[in-house]
Amino acid sequence: MFSIAPSARLRPSPFYAATLAEGVTSFTTYNHMLMPTGYGDPEAEYWRLIEGVSQWDVSVERQVELKGPDAGRLAQILAPRDLSACKAGQGKYVPLCNHDGVLINDPILLKLDDDRYWLSIADSNIWFWARAIAAERGLKVAIGEPDVSPMAVQGPMAENVVAGIFGDWVRDLRYFWFRETRIQGIPVTVARSGWSKQGGFEIYLRDGRRGSDLWNIVREAGQPFGIGPGNPNWVERIESGLLSFGGDTDAATNPFEVRMGGYVDLEAADEVIGIAALRRIAAAGPRRRQLGVMLDGGRPETPGFTWHDIASGGRKIGDLTNCAWSYRLKRNIGFALVAASARPGDPVTVDLAGREVAGRLCDLPFL
Amino acid sequence: MFSIAPSARLRPSPFYAATLAEGVTSFTTYNHMLMPTGYGDPEAEYWRLIEGVSQWDVSVERQVELKGPDAGRLAQILAPRDLSACKAGQGKYVPLCNHDGVLINDPILLKLDDDRYWLSIADSNIWFWARAIAAERGLKVAIGEPDVSPMAVQGPMAENVVAGIFGDWVRDLRYFWFRETRIQGIPVTVARSGWSKQGGFEIYLRDGRRGSDLWNIVREAGQPFGIGPGNPNWVERIESGLLSFGGDTDAATNPFEVRMGGYVDLEAADEVIGIAALRRIAAAGPRRRQLGVMLDGGRPETPGFTWHDIASGGRKIGDLTNCAWSYRLKRNIGFALVAASARPGDPVTVDLAGREVAGRLCDLPFL
Repeated sequence: MFSIAPSARLRPSPFYAATLAEGVTSFTTYNHMLMPTGYGDPEAEYWRLIEGVSQWDVSVERQVELKGPDAGRLAQILAPRDLSACKAGQGKYVPLCNHDGVLINDPILLKLDDDRYWLSIADSNIWFWARAIAAERGLKVAIGEPDVSPMAVQGPMAENVVAGIFGDWVRDLRYFWFRETRIQGIPVTVARSGWSKQGGFEIYLRDGRRGSDLWNIVREAGQPFGIGPGNPNWVERIESGLLSFGGDTDAATNPFEVRMGGYVDLEAADEVIGIAALRRIAAAGPRRRQLGVMLDGGRPETPGFTWHDIASGGRKIGDLTNCAWSYRLKRNIGFALVAASARPGDPVTVDLAGREVAGRLCDLPFL
Repeated sequence: MFSIAPSARLRPSPFYAATLAEGVTSFTTYNHMLMPTGYGDPEAEYWRLIEGVSQWDVSVERQVELKGPDAGRLAQILAPRDLSACKAGQGKYVPLCNHDGVLINDPILLKLDDDRYWLSIADSNIWFWARAIAAERGLKVAIGEPDVSPMAVQGPMAENVVAGIFGDWVRDLRYFWFRETRIQGIPVTVARSGWSKQGGFEIYLRDGRRGSDLWNIVREAGQPFGIGPGNPNWVERIESGLLSFGGDTDAATNPFEVRMGGYVDLEAADEVIGIAALRRIAAAGPRRRQLGVMLDGGRPETPGFTWHDIASGGRKIGDLTNCAWSYRLKRNIGFALVAASARPGDPVTVDLAGREVAGRLCDLPFL
């Protein structure tokens, strides 16, 4: 593996010092920030998430704040999912598309108030996008990046940890709902959310100077439950069928191709970006679909920086967009972005850097 | 240092295999791609650029292609520099600004034809930006990312190497001009450009399957001149006063603050993005300016992921946005983004992670 050259183009997180103290060993970059991706024992970090509780620096999920009288209108222009019933304190998973209906991000939209929204974004530049649209349409809305940095607490024991810190009210939070509060003077927003299917919360730190303080509050409250450091888990997210925007999508992917069709409202107003294209795609039927692949062979495969060709009957039908050794299934699994005609159960071969591996398509999620 | 976790969110370059073979030891990420940043001997790599010739994988300088009847109009809407005299085969360094006059990229614009342009971009998402503007204004232009990946050949011996490959006509290429050609069947575009002040060329590979072939053609042609691998050189670019967008700029930086005022045409048409804001900023005078800092002390400082406070008379006046040990000046130098009232010669102190270091402001470039 290679080291990362320091540069102010890549910002550290408010939790950077805390993750260094925890012994972080690898990073990725995401929204021009460093995100921890490992602490030296991938299997222990996996089982901690599956069986206990894990604490993640996900400050790279930056917030694009829409604020002003036209904030709600802009949110609805950007997202082809119907937001009319979304209440203050509620979050929604939304696709963002360009004018061609191509997916350009899949954030959680948090409605803070009628005139204030956050888009808690995946890895693409939605500040530029939202500003361009707002300015071109003359909307009365300010778009900025507030001092907000999420930390995730994930796993079956997460609720006990977070309730121990904030009180039992967090047990009543519904999925994607959130509440603003303080802990030891630190302003935070507590949401039931997170990029795993093991349950848990994201605590949005609203004062970047207090990163280590908040990290250590969670760390100490988690000790009785065996908490330890982790990160958005590459294996668990594949097992659970969670999409990685930019990793599992390309410059032509639309929401229907990656199981997000249920979040598209084809009756949306014409001013919603991409809606005309999305209606056309829905009518014609998308050209690709996302399935799982179970690979043969008992040797763990190493994930790479590229997609891998998937073939059926000697002809390329799509791409393997990720791959991991599932500790629970004890086999290699991954996502397939393949021709719409492909079906679960179809036998395929995957070209792993020149080595052909047999496998079979299947439904997602794996677990 | 830390390792980089593999993910298809971060694409390798067409020269990836070649740089692995050269022994690359560190990377950064840039436009969602991996860029080599070192081969294990920073000082040797520096002197190779200063005294000989160096070969760089800069495929992360992606091309945003504007193609169609409105391509020229869109280019001029995006860039507040007058492009009316730009000819096919000519490149121009241009600021791109948002509607507030904030710098959002500083690409080289290459005019391929009246209806086809490339923006050879720095590290921000101009595909999103250009597509949003084109779609909102109803322009007839397709915006895409062609299969184009630059390799730089830089240093005083670069011209001999590139002329040895393509012929003596490259010696007559003017700065930022370019020509399409082929070498051993590989389609390339040869431009006199590059992110150093040591002279040289960028060879734009136009077939991503031929990365190793092109790398090795240059490598072999360069043997008599002592060519070796390098990268956009952190030390040389600071000595030479070259801007790193995103590293030396923040979310409020306008072109006047970072010595790009000469590339802004205040007489531009009103449809040019940001022009009204740029006129206001020019009239009021920018709030900050960019200078150099010479630091006291003979111990090389380590660059970091953050800016550092610069103070004068006990009061913060700005930020040190980069820092390097100059092998030629034998001292630490960096860029200062400071209050407009600051002057070359002013004594300052820089807070390097809690350690105060004295220094003096100076003009850029250093060399």
